[in-house]
Amino acid sequence: MNETTLKVEGMTCNHCKAAVEGALTELDGIESAIVSLQDHRVDVIHNDKISKRAMIEAIEEQGYDVNA
Amino acid sequence: MNETTLKVEGMTCNHCKAAVEGALTELDGIESAIVSLQDHRVDVIHNDKISKRAMIEAIEEQGYDVNA
Repeated sequence: MNETTLKVEGMTCNHCKAAVEGALTELDGIESAIVSLQDHRVDVIHNDKISKRAMIEAIEEQGYDVNA
Repeated sequence: MNETTLKVEGMTCNHCKAAVEGALTELDGIESAIVSLQDHRVDVIHNDKISKRAMIEAIEEQGYDVNA
């Protein structure tokens, strides 16, 4: 398993946290995704088959900007 | 129909808006509920059978404070 940390802008509340974590953990190859609202980031544990691009797109689809 | 405006603290994003509007419009006697995030308020259109207390409780159940 690998870990990728992404900086995510615009997450303000626990709904946002759940939306981003849910969108990521729905993807094949992601084991866990934990958002820190305070640090504007998400830590993703994943295998080597999923791309960073796919993670970013899943977050952007939820309406948040990623500073990769 | 009557209109009641409630001041609600802690709504930060469109998820919050949807949570509060959804919780209110699920109640019998409420025709519509429109949140303004910018003004920290919700405007409720309702009949005379539903109490302000019931509206406040529905909002508080979603995790927000009401300054009635």
